[in-house]
Amino acid sequence: MCGIVAYVGHREACPLVLKGLKRLEYRGYDSAGVALLNGEGLNVYKKKGKVADLEKELAGKELTATIGMGHTRWATHGEPNDINAHPHYSDNGKLAIIHNGIIENYATLKENLIRKGHEFRSQTDSEVLIHFIEEIQKHTCCSLEEAVRQALQEVVGAYAIVVMSEDDPTQLIAARKGSPLVIGVGDGEFFMASDATPIIEYTKDVVYLNDYEVAVIKDGELKVMTLDNTQTTPYIQKVELELEAIEKGGFDHFMLKEIFEQPRSIADSMRGRVKADEGHLVLGGLRDYLDQLASSKRIVIVGCGTSWHAGLVAEYIFEELARIPVEVEYASEFRYRNPIIAERDVVIAISQSGETADTLAAIELAKSKGATIFGVCNVVGSSIARATHAGAYTHAGPEIGVASTKAFTAQVTVLTLMALSAAKRKGTISDTLFRQLLAELEALPAKVEKVLEGAERIKEIAYIFTYARNFIYLGRGLNFPVALEGALKLKEISYIHAEGYPAAEMKHGPIALIDEDMPVVFIATKDSSYEKVVSNIQEVKARKGRVIAIATEGETQLQSMVDFVIEIPKVHDILMPLISVIPLQLLAYYVAVMRGRNVDQPRNLAKSVTVE
Amino acid sequence: MCGIVAYVGHREACPLVLKGLKRLEYRGYDSAGVALLNGEGLNVYKKKGKVADLEKELAGKELTATIGMGHTRWATHGEPNDINAHPHYSDNGKLAIIHNGIIENYATLKENLIRKGHEFRSQTDSEVLIHFIEEIQKHTCCSLEEAVRQALQEVVGAYAIVVMSEDDPTQLIAARKGSPLVIGVGDGEFFMASDATPIIEYTKDVVYLNDYEVAVIKDGELKVMTLDNTQTTPYIQKVELELEAIEKGGFDHFMLKEIFEQPRSIADSMRGRVKADEGHLVLGGLRDYLDQLASSKRIVIVGCGTSWHAGLVAEYIFEELARIPVEVEYASEFRYRNPIIAERDVVIAISQSGETADTLAAIELAKSKGATIFGVCNVVGSSIARATHAGAYTHAGPEIGVASTKAFTAQVTVLTLMALSAAKRKGTISDTLFRQLLAELEALPAKVEKVLEGAERIKEIAYIFTYARNFIYLGRGLNFPVALEGALKLKEISYIHAEGYPAAEMKHGPIALIDEDMPVVFIATKDSSYEKVVSNIQEVKARKGRVIAIATEGETQLQSMVDFVIEIPKVHDILMPLISVIPLQLLAYYVAVMRGRNVDQPRNLAKSVTVE
Repeated sequence: MCGIVAYVGHREACPLVLKGLKRLEYRGYDSAGVALLNGEGLNVYKKKGKVADLEKELAGKELTATIGMGHTRWATHGEPNDINAHPHYSDNGKLAIIHNGIIENYATLKENLIRKGHEFRSQTDSEVLIHFIEEIQKHTCCSLEEAVRQALQEVVGAYAIVVMSEDDPTQLIAARKGSPLVIGVGDGEFFMASDATPIIEYTKDVVYLNDYEVAVIKDGELKVMTLDNTQTTPYIQKVELELEAIEKGGFDHFMLKEIFEQPRSIADSMRGRVKADEGHLVLGGLRDYLDQLASSKRIVIVGCGTSWHAGLVAEYIFEELARIPVEVEYASEFRYRNPIIAERDVVIAISQSGETADTLAAIELAKSKGATIFGVCNVVGSSIARATHAGAYTHAGPEIGVASTKAFTAQVTVLTLMALSAAKRKGTISDTLFRQLLAELEALPAKVEKVLEGAERIKEIAYIFTYARNFIYLGRGLNFPVALEGALKLKEISYIHAEGYPAAEMKHGPIALIDEDMPVVFIATKDSSYEKVVSNIQEVKARKGRVIAIATEGETQLQSMVDFVIEIPKVHDILMPLISVIPLQLLAYYVAVMRGRNVDQPRNLAKSVTVE
Repeated sequence: MCGIVAYVGHREACPLVLKGLKRLEYRGYDSAGVALLNGEGLNVYKKKGKVADLEKELAGKELTATIGMGHTRWATHGEPNDINAHPHYSDNGKLAIIHNGIIENYATLKENLIRKGHEFRSQTDSEVLIHFIEEIQKHTCCSLEEAVRQALQEVVGAYAIVVMSEDDPTQLIAARKGSPLVIGVGDGEFFMASDATPIIEYTKDVVYLNDYEVAVIKDGELKVMTLDNTQTTPYIQKVELELEAIEKGGFDHFMLKEIFEQPRSIADSMRGRVKADEGHLVLGGLRDYLDQLASSKRIVIVGCGTSWHAGLVAEYIFEELARIPVEVEYASEFRYRNPIIAERDVVIAISQSGETADTLAAIELAKSKGATIFGVCNVVGSSIARATHAGAYTHAGPEIGVASTKAFTAQVTVLTLMALSAAKRKGTISDTLFRQLLAELEALPAKVEKVLEGAERIKEIAYIFTYARNFIYLGRGLNFPVALEGALKLKEISYIHAEGYPAAEMKHGPIALIDEDMPVVFIATKDSSYEKVVSNIQEVKARKGRVIAIATEGETQLQSMVDFVIEIPKVHDILMPLISVIPLQLLAYYVAVMRGRNVDQPRNLAKSVTVE
């Protein structure tokens, strides 16, 4: 996690860096800091809290500088406070570093440095790294870039770093392994950031730094080399991101904006891919690998958090339509086992940011075992998109709210298209059903719109449950992962302990939690498991639980049985999660707002998890 | 759920039935009742609450009778109260029924009966059934046994029932489908019950009624026939259960007794199967099917609750040792999909009671698709044990506490033995490792004993967290399912909302819940994922969470990092769950006791879930 920004050129660095940090706050926001270099020397200003708190702290200070860097933090080592905030100085104060990632062997390095007389101000692993660089430079009298390279060869872990030195006001040195870093190339000026959003106002020409590469900007020139000092030619590409896509557009929060964008984002994820009237479905990124997908003996899906939930939905769909056994794994668990990957096994990796560290590591492991990897990412050109053999972008547009919403529905849509393509190729789906599902997919955005029209009703229900301490979410079949996702949303932004379960598992333990204080959200749509879900509702009502049911419109049986009904339009069972998840997103959003939570930047979280 | 008991013979029925119900309270205990037939007619006495409450209610009443029946309930339809308690009368009050199960089409039947003038006192499905039987008898003038048979042919659902009639003080009519029923055959007397525990004091000769069978006891004779009226010969067998095995033996609760029995129950589950010094491992029940297991292309494990957790542990072990891909499914989810079962796929079903309705249904589905089914059950002769092709009993002895403890460790032990057998046969395990694991298995009971010696320390920690509102349990690899199991134990008996997660998933959402009020239990034993777990602990400590770590003895790094350390002996990674789960069982137990909970009979729960 953590967001980093750096600038060198002719503009005022401080406001530019601060503005960039605000764009990156989705990556972490428990403390922030900047380093500026000018006639006064190399000065670091930092503060616990959000970038806005840092900004207040800086108000009125004389901060003119044309080179600087900044950091917004998601704590891994050491609690969030002023001292642990970045940038960190070296021992003599002449070097400063910002770092995104984890240095796993920092304890050993730190011990050695302490023995050599280094004193540390913070508990962070990052401070250890800059001291280590300083020590190498002092010891071997080499250049700073050489010291950075040598230091990084000793480091175990993941990082994107930028280093500044008091001795050279034209120089920024950056490097990455595992954490993303984009370099913006302007006219006599350079930008660096964790993603392109702080850069696009100034230039669309960017270089994505690769793992094990070091970038040195010095005297207006950019040089890229590998850790073992082989020079490489930086590949400059155009970034296709527009400014308005990353601003709020009249909504109170990015999350709400993104929930309401879903009719469009779902449509975007199908654009150019589906033509129902012609029975046409093409996923360009899959074309050369579709046979491999369709003939696979087993699919392993890896992901984390919301992406893992999208994987669980996809499991049902692939098994049902394409008759291929699917296993869904937590990326973090998969990568530390010795997983069984056989010939003709396919791995699908899901990640909104395309930078999720655990998922990326899972891909590398699966690749090393000879698997074919498909990626489902939202961010074009991201590490995961580049690491996979084939894939399909979700095209949901930038997602800024930390709690994922439109990325989830776009992931499920794209995975459904993949399953349909495989089923069609394999011949496991009838032409009638294939065409029916394509038609229903095309009609889906309008139905999502209809669910969104009911937002006021959901807001009223949210009001009633504002002060609930716990929540349980239950569903069966395709709606079981939706229950997990609904619970996760509430957890993330309201800090209410919410948990999802397959409805029938409740009686094997969790039902002990049910009493008159416990709200239970049932996804009880009219599908093949409807009658069974109704039995489960009765078991909860018999224990006086308060039930909110997500039901298919026109449904009457539930009205008298439960406390609150939220109606959603009828769709084919296979597509139900795309509709049934929407009210749960809204419910979580409104509860969190009423509790006064910072919806877009919930505590402790970060948008893209680039540490393990 | 629900427990049923009935008696006809020469003894006093009422105390015998009440004593039997107490033995069955693990099956449900939200209300209880008895029906007694004597010169005064057919009288029903019932009460919300436990059997002890009913007993108080009955004190001082004149209740002499030599035929009677009783019921302890776990509510499915209608809240637990006096009226919904069983037995239920027919419309004219001349018939009474006790029922365990669910009548799914009760609403339709009820509507028809109301139209015919029936009046219902309760909201239960069971009352509908006895009215329906009465209606058939009245309408067709047939015998009661004929009316029962006809009624059951119309019924959709699961049941074990006993029916009594005011007209015949020598007659009990019973039937089963899906819910268990045992008939004890004495000298001129008969017993009926949901399991053998109420019977063994009086006779060891029992008949296990099969699905779709009706038993009629009349004038001292037992007759068994099928629903379509073909007479069958009841198979009388000896039950091998001793009385002391089902009593508390000096412990405050069955759960505590069962936790402390684990050194013995784990040893029992290996007895006669493992001889480490000879490198010998034989599972008798597997012998004819071992090749099939070892050569399987894919294993699907099905279970519910704690058994599902045992399945997750087994997934790691089978994949690691035998290199067979394993998928673990909730039985309730598996059975309502169209699961993909290919040739050479094997299904392993896990259930303590061997009566779990969802697991039984999953087995039937898998069988219909041609899979070979292995069972891992604790109760000998149970429905699941009989429905599978092969299997291994866990031999943990009767488990009475509703929260499963010794059954879990016995399941994991037996599944480990199965994986070792398969690996050995397949040649995927070295002889050295095979012998090492056998030796470590033999040494395991002594190590469990050592963990149990630390119970006082765990009690102290439990005291500190008595009033916690929430808990999070985290582990990686084999300890991830242990985290789930630890959380489930606490949930079940203390009603604290506890949730388990793979440690690395925390930062994808649940970490938002962490603040200084949140206790987090980490299973941080010295194994291959230890370093990564330490990083996750630091992430939690950085947010001021209170950390209890289960650590390997001699470990020093964690002492300064976390709030409380519970040390456990070192074992091979593969066997770790068998040790690491023990402190979590104790922690849950002591927290629940300090909160004043009814540990052996937590609210809303029942031991064996024989409804869907």
